[in-house]
Amino acid sequence: MKIGILGAGQLGRMLVLAGTPLGFRFKLYDPTALAPGGQVAPLQVGAFDDLVAVGAFAHDTDVVTVDWENVPVSAARTVAGLTRMHPSPRALAAAQDRLSEKKMFARLGIPVAPYAPVADFDDLEQAAIAVGMPGILKTRRLGYDGKGQCVIRNRAGLADAWRTLGDQPLIYERLLRFTREVSLVAARSRNGDTAMYPLAQNTHLDGLLAITRAPFEDRSLQRQAEAHMANLLRHLSYVGVLCMELFVVDGKLVANEIAPRVHNSGHWTIEGADTSQFENHLRAIAGLPLGSANARGHAVMVNLIGSMPRRRDVLALNGVHLHDYGKEARPGRKLGHLTYVARTPRERDRVARSLLKLAGR
Amino acid sequence: MKIGILGAGQLGRMLVLAGTPLGFRFKLYDPTALAPGGQVAPLQVGAFDDLVAVGAFAHDTDVVTVDWENVPVSAARTVAGLTRMHPSPRALAAAQDRLSEKKMFARLGIPVAPYAPVADFDDLEQAAIAVGMPGILKTRRLGYDGKGQCVIRNRAGLADAWRTLGDQPLIYERLLRFTREVSLVAARSRNGDTAMYPLAQNTHLDGLLAITRAPFEDRSLQRQAEAHMANLLRHLSYVGVLCMELFVVDGKLVANEIAPRVHNSGHWTIEGADTSQFENHLRAIAGLPLGSANARGHAVMVNLIGSMPRRRDVLALNGVHLHDYGKEARPGRKLGHLTYVARTPRERDRVARSLLKLAGR
Repeated sequence: MKIGILGAGQLGRMLVLAGTPLGFRFKLYDPTALAPGGQVAPLQVGAFDDLVAVGAFAHDTDVVTVDWENVPVSAARTVAGLTRMHPSPRALAAAQDRLSEKKMFARLGIPVAPYAPVADFDDLEQAAIAVGMPGILKTRRLGYDGKGQCVIRNRAGLADAWRTLGDQPLIYERLLRFTREVSLVAARSRNGDTAMYPLAQNTHLDGLLAITRAPFEDRSLQRQAEAHMANLLRHLSYVGVLCMELFVVDGKLVANEIAPRVHNSGHWTIEGADTSQFENHLRAIAGLPLGSANARGHAVMVNLIGSMPRRRDVLALNGVHLHDYGKEARPGRKLGHLTYVARTPRERDRVARSLLKLAGR
Repeated sequence: MKIGILGAGQLGRMLVLAGTPLGFRFKLYDPTALAPGGQVAPLQVGAFDDLVAVGAFAHDTDVVTVDWENVPVSAARTVAGLTRMHPSPRALAAAQDRLSEKKMFARLGIPVAPYAPVADFDDLEQAAIAVGMPGILKTRRLGYDGKGQCVIRNRAGLADAWRTLGDQPLIYERLLRFTREVSLVAARSRNGDTAMYPLAQNTHLDGLLAITRAPFEDRSLQRQAEAHMANLLRHLSYVGVLCMELFVVDGKLVANEIAPRVHNSGHWTIEGADTSQFENHLRAIAGLPLGSANARGHAVMVNLIGSMPRRRDVLALNGVHLHDYGKEARPGRKLGHLTYVARTPRERDRVARSLLKLAGR
């Protein structure tokens, strides 16, 4: 079976590494010749909006997937006309616009922070009153890793935020006082079976995921999250892995956003779960049975951002797994991650401190 | 760091899969354009005895290793003159001739079955008397997976064996009545540190490894094996992973042969040990600290030979890991393997029966 991946970043690369032992063949498509996935599978270089090239890429595949949620819906539609495409263009479209995403959540009974669409400065002023302050002004499209966002704490902040982000479709959301950020990674197969990983607890620094601990053991929240996820996956007739990021507010879950792909907060599953998110995504899109999503212990995953620690220092730590994405160092760039699977939460938290130090945090 | 591998079979492929997350870049050299390693790293096609091509392959690498123990020593010497080469030409030479291998064992005090070199039919008749019958006549070079071997049970068998194998350097060995076949996989780093995996118990069918169970828990045999291994690694100033196959005869170990490379009986370490044999081989040859060789549970590894089970049937079994080498099916060919890591030896043996059935055994 030949699998095409639109996007050859670290997610595409880890999909190839997970799928090769299953006997899948891969080809990748990316605008960048040096994309890290190109080290492990043939890479076709092209723009995502070059629909002729995307079509040529897709025509000899059995299924195509993405390693980036912002692949243009037009490209996904082109692929879907030629071969199997997971996630579907509809699922991609739903996740690419924060407004349609929020509306979908609301329709499915999934709690979200109060919000209002913003088209001009008047909208913004009214939104701040209706929704309340503090809040966050976000671009509706193409935001990621904290980019395209401004926190607004008072009336003076409205004009500043507008100067930074104005003149594009925006959304204003109430800034929630949350006690935790968590995420649920789940896979749904073609026949509707699902595999839900344990909730992971995430900590962001400077808008980037810094550290994930999993499982986040809270039965009630796990049940809530799984119910929301089941609704969403069914609504989208989703096939593959999807991640939902949520806030814990007063003991309840509030959905923040979804990513219709494997997710950074699921990297711990490579060593920390019976089946990794990468393998389960591939099993799902290939029409194969899903694997167990059970945790094997208490995992911590620390992102390596901007610069890499010395390989020797990482490997000297017993049980620590290095994932180097093979990318050139650049400030603020995700270059790799470290994982450790402990027997107890206490041991995990102890090792987490060493890993954060190694990561220069 | 750029690593070259002479040989791009399944072992080279699994080395690439293990080393990519560590940030290593790979290139492979193999006589066959369809070698399975070529699916995950650039492959240079050439003959192993084309020393000009081998030299060109080696010149821009930081270190070169092998996925086949019979890479000509001349090729290894050519590489060693241009870059770092592990295993050394000397270690390869020692393992390529069964006679020099046996002499080395004897010199190091490692027990071996009684044997005698055989150059002509007279030698064979005398060896059968001196060493005893039943015995095995083997080619001194290039035998593997039961090929190049004849069991001789009585005087009549001598002539048959000679007709099959005669007119090349041979060795006659006493056929031992062993209770178990075991193997020890170990890694030695550049600075002399070693990591020894638990003994694995192996079962061969038709000369091919069929099933490995690990750890084979016997403290006394583990100690014996590690002492022999430590001697051998030191003697060869070995760097990388090496496997020693042994028989258990009357509660003692008798060495059969070594392979100066990662080994089929170590495949269980991918899921069943803290650090896989593939990762530890790469750590060793790259001059990095070795990882823990501790077992994580009770693993069983079953080879898939000649034909592959349906992927769907394999993946429907919870916790079973499929390793498809991406090779064309052919009778007697190793096409992949299955691994399962159980909590108890009893559970392992139960699952082993299902895996053998899947493998068509």
